[in-house]
Amino acid sequence: MGMTIAEKILAAHAGQEEASPGDLINARVDIALGNDITAPIAIKLFRQSGAAKVFDKDRVVLVPDHFTPTKDINSAMQVKMVRDFAREQELSHWYEGGDSGVEHALLPEKGIVGPGDLVIGADSHTCTYGGLGAFATGVGSTDLAAAMITGEVWLKVPESIKFVYKGKLRPHVEGKDLILHTIGDIGVDGALYMAMEFTGEVIDALPMAERLTMANMAIEAGGKAGIIAPDATTKEYADGRVIRKPVFYASDPDAQYAKVIEYDVSDLEPQVAFPHLPENTRPISQVGDVPIHQVIIGSCTNGRIEDMRSAARILTGNKADKNVRLIVIPATPQIYRQAMEEGLFDIFLSAGAVISPPTCGPCLGGHMGILAAGERAVATTNRNFVGRMGHVESEVYLANPAVAAASAIAGKIAGPDDI
Amino acid sequence: MGMTIAEKILAAHAGQEEASPGDLINARVDIALGNDITAPIAIKLFRQSGAAKVFDKDRVVLVPDHFTPTKDINSAMQVKMVRDFAREQELSHWYEGGDSGVEHALLPEKGIVGPGDLVIGADSHTCTYGGLGAFATGVGSTDLAAAMITGEVWLKVPESIKFVYKGKLRPHVEGKDLILHTIGDIGVDGALYMAMEFTGEVIDALPMAERLTMANMAIEAGGKAGIIAPDATTKEYADGRVIRKPVFYASDPDAQYAKVIEYDVSDLEPQVAFPHLPENTRPISQVGDVPIHQVIIGSCTNGRIEDMRSAARILTGNKADKNVRLIVIPATPQIYRQAMEEGLFDIFLSAGAVISPPTCGPCLGGHMGILAAGERAVATTNRNFVGRMGHVESEVYLANPAVAAASAIAGKIAGPDDI
Repeated sequence: MGMTIAEKILAAHAGQEEASPGDLINARVDIALGNDITAPIAIKLFRQSGAAKVFDKDRVVLVPDHFTPTKDINSAMQVKMVRDFAREQELSHWYEGGDSGVEHALLPEKGIVGPGDLVIGADSHTCTYGGLGAFATGVGSTDLAAAMITGEVWLKVPESIKFVYKGKLRPHVEGKDLILHTIGDIGVDGALYMAMEFTGEVIDALPMAERLTMANMAIEAGGKAGIIAPDATTKEYADGRVIRKPVFYASDPDAQYAKVIEYDVSDLEPQVAFPHLPENTRPISQVGDVPIHQVIIGSCTNGRIEDMRSAARILTGNKADKNVRLIVIPATPQIYRQAMEEGLFDIFLSAGAVISPPTCGPCLGGHMGILAAGERAVATTNRNFVGRMGHVESEVYLANPAVAAASAIAGKIAGPDDI
Repeated sequence: MGMTIAEKILAAHAGQEEASPGDLINARVDIALGNDITAPIAIKLFRQSGAAKVFDKDRVVLVPDHFTPTKDINSAMQVKMVRDFAREQELSHWYEGGDSGVEHALLPEKGIVGPGDLVIGADSHTCTYGGLGAFATGVGSTDLAAAMITGEVWLKVPESIKFVYKGKLRPHVEGKDLILHTIGDIGVDGALYMAMEFTGEVIDALPMAERLTMANMAIEAGGKAGIIAPDATTKEYADGRVIRKPVFYASDPDAQYAKVIEYDVSDLEPQVAFPHLPENTRPISQVGDVPIHQVIIGSCTNGRIEDMRSAARILTGNKADKNVRLIVIPATPQIYRQAMEEGLFDIFLSAGAVISPPTCGPCLGGHMGILAAGERAVATTNRNFVGRMGHVESEVYLANPAVAAASAIAGKIAGPDDI
């Protein structure tokens, strides 16, 4: 019987010929990831276990990015604990200060994760790496601790849903809009514990940055993973970058899916997810009059150089509305520098933006632009839950970088064509 | 009887011919300043007073800079309160987001304060503007509220101390070192409620940026104000910049001083103030072996373009030590952009620095690089009190930007000549 790409990756990492949905497997992990919030808990458990060394110093990756540069004493103590552990264990991949960035942007950029990998991370958006053709999933700090010690993870093989995107995208319609549209369709529990396999001619034509954006938000539909079979685009991205030898898996023609969902997206407009769930999507033409106070362009969802360029194209020659604080957050030091060198910082500053060093920052209500009561933000991030970016009476609207930039200029939610 | 420059400015603003130390005066203020921490309290008092309008919408200046970009819900609510007030009162000088910066760097840069002014600000480092030949002093939020309503402040005319700096400064010895040396000499209460008048051939030759640095730290010796008589350097800085007509006051030859203190500074080395008081100064040659974990280059003391250049000269072609987080914080949007355009960002990033948007940030333990227990920072800021930059078991060493940069490279406190 045929297997899906997710099943193949899991079978290979469990040392099995086959894996079927519902199977409980013990699988070898290629990378185990923690950040400044989740790693300290895992490190405590590691200590309690009596383990002396992590299973592989090249495969345990720790990235402080949520409350960094440290926002308070607690976060400073957390980062210190992780740093001390990383040094004691002589981890190859420990990043902080000017070397650090948003973990899910940093790991693909540095080739630490690649096609065919099984990656676990104590962060829900670990699913991002599915854009590269990896099986990547978020776990709790306990699972991370176990993986740090044993190099293995215990999990249930998920069913897969196949999404087929047909047609040709209109201008300013991006991967972000595809995934928002999908979540809007199936709901925030529409793919509960399933692998969301994104396929079709639209995906074939999708640049890597937008693939990562799509996989990143699989968790927002409850997905265990989002995954896109590696292809020529993947190869181009991976060549000379991915540290370990990439393995290109693909679903068999007779693979079994829980569901196959097709979308013709030729007429799809840019999407906006209204508060307080990512499923509350509306096409930009149906948004109505929604004044805003802040715009965030960044995060593991849309903080890559392509996102910076997309925002900059709209912002060129324009200024953010006087009622809007525009905050741009390149997700990694490399993106930051590249954006500067390409002249994008010049455009952002002329538009009145604040440029933040790489950090998760406001996405999770961490710091660097927290909302007061009654304030509304358009953000290129992934979640708009109640109080996600600050006060419980604030609101977050999710959109792509072009919409976010247009909204900053308009002072209300707006599409690139409205400017 | 002759008057000092401080006495002349106060007399003029009290509508008197003369003013003598000990006089209680009611004086007209040119500018009343508040920030995101102090203005909310003043605004509450303003509301309670029943006042409808501030005395002059061009002279009440509100700058959120301490916890911005907003670090949490509380700071977001504080900024919102100040913003709402600034808009209701139609204040000419309200800055936030991409327009805002460290208040004491922003006001001189924009010409909002100038020679001959009487400035009060609900922030202890308001004394900075004395570098321009203004009488500027920090007040509480209550005094700010009263000034916002009446345009006046009640104060006691201070005695003056005259400091005379003779000789010629060695390379890498700056205004910061003069003031640290002075505080090291007279102690943190050595000028309690006095005007510190900085004079002499060294001051005559001192660039405006370093004059502002010196006046900025007058409060660290307990001074009511620090002041430097305006001259050609002041004129050059003020021309085409200062909004109101500057008035150049100078002390009379027979002015009375509580004390006159002379320093020959020809042999002065760069100074470092050890924890936990600015008076604990040592010349760089006597520092010994002090490993560090963080370097902060910025703040109202040393966050100007000249400070950025000074740090960049040392950092060119060098990298921060792997144990040091280097955080550079240009103090205003204009400095930020200029540093970028001059190629300084390139140098900072190559050195491994994080570049922060303008904010007070870590100086006061606000955010953007808070210290954990056991961590040491070298900072170009103004205070190294216990817990000032984070945990009570952390330490802050004050220095000039060249020393801070050299220390970042060395991984321990070091002078520019040690690199």
